[in-house]
Amino acid sequence: VYEQFSRRVADLHASPIREILSVIDRPGMVSFAGGLPAPETFPELTLDHLPRALLQYGASEGEAELRERIAADLGGIGLPCSPEQVLVLSGSQQGIDLVAKLFIDPGTLVAVESPTYLAALQVFRFFGASFSGFDPQQPAMSWSGAQRPAFVYAIPTFQNLTGRCYTTDERVALARSCDAHGVPLFEDDPYRDLAYDPCDRTPGLRLGFLVASPDLVVYLTRLKQATDLHSSRLSRWLVLQQLRDARRAQRLEQLLATYRGKRDFFAAALERHLGDAVSWEMPPGGLFFWLTLARSRDTRTLLPEAIRRGVAFMPGEPFYPAVSNGCGALRLNFNHADAAQTERGLATLEQLIAE
Amino acid sequence: VYEQFSRRVADLHASPIREILSVIDRPGMVSFAGGLPAPETFPELTLDHLPRALLQYGASEGEAELRERIAADLGGIGLPCSPEQVLVLSGSQQGIDLVAKLFIDPGTLVAVESPTYLAALQVFRFFGASFSGFDPQQPAMSWSGAQRPAFVYAIPTFQNLTGRCYTTDERVALARSCDAHGVPLFEDDPYRDLAYDPCDRTPGLRLGFLVASPDLVVYLTRLKQATDLHSSRLSRWLVLQQLRDARRAQRLEQLLATYRGKRDFFAAALERHLGDAVSWEMPPGGLFFWLTLARSRDTRTLLPEAIRRGVAFMPGEPFYPAVSNGCGALRLNFNHADAAQTERGLATLEQLIAE
Repeated sequence: VYEQFSRRVADLHASPIREILSVIDRPGMVSFAGGLPAPETFPELTLDHLPRALLQYGASEGEAELRERIAADLGGIGLPCSPEQVLVLSGSQQGIDLVAKLFIDPGTLVAVESPTYLAALQVFRFFGASFSGFDPQQPAMSWSGAQRPAFVYAIPTFQNLTGRCYTTDERVALARSCDAHGVPLFEDDPYRDLAYDPCDRTPGLRLGFLVASPDLVVYLTRLKQATDLHSSRLSRWLVLQQLRDARRAQRLEQLLATYRGKRDFFAAALERHLGDAVSWEMPPGGLFFWLTLARSRDTRTLLPEAIRRGVAFMPGEPFYPAVSNGCGALRLNFNHADAAQTERGLATLEQLIAE
Repeated sequence: VYEQFSRRVADLHASPIREILSVIDRPGMVSFAGGLPAPETFPELTLDHLPRALLQYGASEGEAELRERIAADLGGIGLPCSPEQVLVLSGSQQGIDLVAKLFIDPGTLVAVESPTYLAALQVFRFFGASFSGFDPQQPAMSWSGAQRPAFVYAIPTFQNLTGRCYTTDERVALARSCDAHGVPLFEDDPYRDLAYDPCDRTPGLRLGFLVASPDLVVYLTRLKQATDLHSSRLSRWLVLQQLRDARRAQRLEQLLATYRGKRDFFAAALERHLGDAVSWEMPPGGLFFWLTLARSRDTRTLLPEAIRRGVAFMPGEPFYPAVSNGCGALRLNFNHADAAQTERGLATLEQLIAE
């Protein structure tokens, strides 16, 4: 449109996820598309005891008590860190933006899983990254010269979108590769607490926080200043209240029971409706089933007709760093639709795939 | 630190404002430094009638009702626009980040006032901008070839930091120059509502929103998606409640009376303490006095001793797009300190400048 636009705008595309989210509010639409949490699990919120001083401008890094609380929690799961290493964010997407700003010039190499989180690929691409893949099950890597990436981006725990959880051996091998080559590891960990089955979970980041080594956190804090000065102090205070709440562990148990029940119900419905047409592994945590069609085809071509019939899902192709036509995979969120919607939505997909 | 850092990190410096904000909480510190609003004017907030559905992920652009409300308000002050042109932001700094991402490559020319808002200069520089200045009192410009900027950044209403307000003629001349050369105008308008004296105020942007022409808003929305998916829906809902409140106009009147009184008190105290040592113009709106020392010197060299004596202010030098040593100007916020603190703070500055 404007000749004055920056060169990076050529790589600026609308997010397929956000585009799909804009249709799911239509009456009667069953959405398996986004990573939406179940609304019935939302907490009650109040500002009754909000200190008025929190309506003033505040620190870029977050309030001291919240950072201390996060550092203590991370210490409790085996990742010792100081409160000074914790940066509170306006959502995890902001962490991806800050890391991209810190590391990526046009042509910078970034190592990613394939497939991986779509919105991270978009941001990295926007800043000019090129990609090298790595196999989560063979994470011991030997990078040399121009093959060495600026950083590794990985989602080891309930990977969005396959739901897979790295074993401890795989985690150790990946960490050793990074250490040996001086390559920073950027771990994205949105679903750590959403674990339904026992599996290896070693420490990582949390939604809305970023924890980095002391030499990196200085730069990330400056980038945060330049990006939005600071995040909402109201939100930070409300999160702190949730962390302080003595009933927190009990609430998480209830939430996991609800989500585990939804996952198991969804798996049974998948088996009934699509047992012959697709294959999948049971996700031990997170929010998604990752389905592979028995007859491979580009799942993007199915989406318009699915939406016309009132069902939204996420095609697999945009989640690959290399152009992928016809990976034959799709991602379904299992916890947003209720039981009746799930039945109807999967029956519709069954019919559509059969056609 | 890391050889893998992006090239832009070389231009990443800590914000002097944010650094100073980190010391103003010290007991006994009088701060004239930040652009802090007066805490006694903060509204009461409650989440009592918050719709639970707002705790779900939401639209990048903001809820429809809030966008409609903002568009209607802007129409009321003479800037007709559609709700689709309104993008709700996580604070105005985010608008600066999005515009920089949209337009600035290394070497891109941006036209700015001199001095101008420090945090905008930092972001533009970080993305690689070079600067051309323009005189707000001579805004009719004729750009040709490589002199034509990618955009003009201006704060026509109560400029942060001089407090100056463009006349209608100056506004028209600037707009005509931009139109004639196809140069987008990025107007920053944080203080429009903080007007103490009659003056020309024509429409512009609002804190926390960005309004753009329809062809630009598509790109800015995608950039917003990539930056943080969407802003806090809680905050957006709370802002909407404030906009809906029938007592809003009355509250603004009261706030202006409070701020006008503080400005006038500050001006009288300035006259008493620094009448011989500095010159200034009475700011018709906004939050700042912009002082010029009778004997020019680099005001950054005064700051450490001022802070040691318990007074923080903002040196003028970082607000210039070109390197400026010894502009001999400083910016004082007049509405955060109370009367006794103002007296003590200005007496300290008087003493310091005399020495």
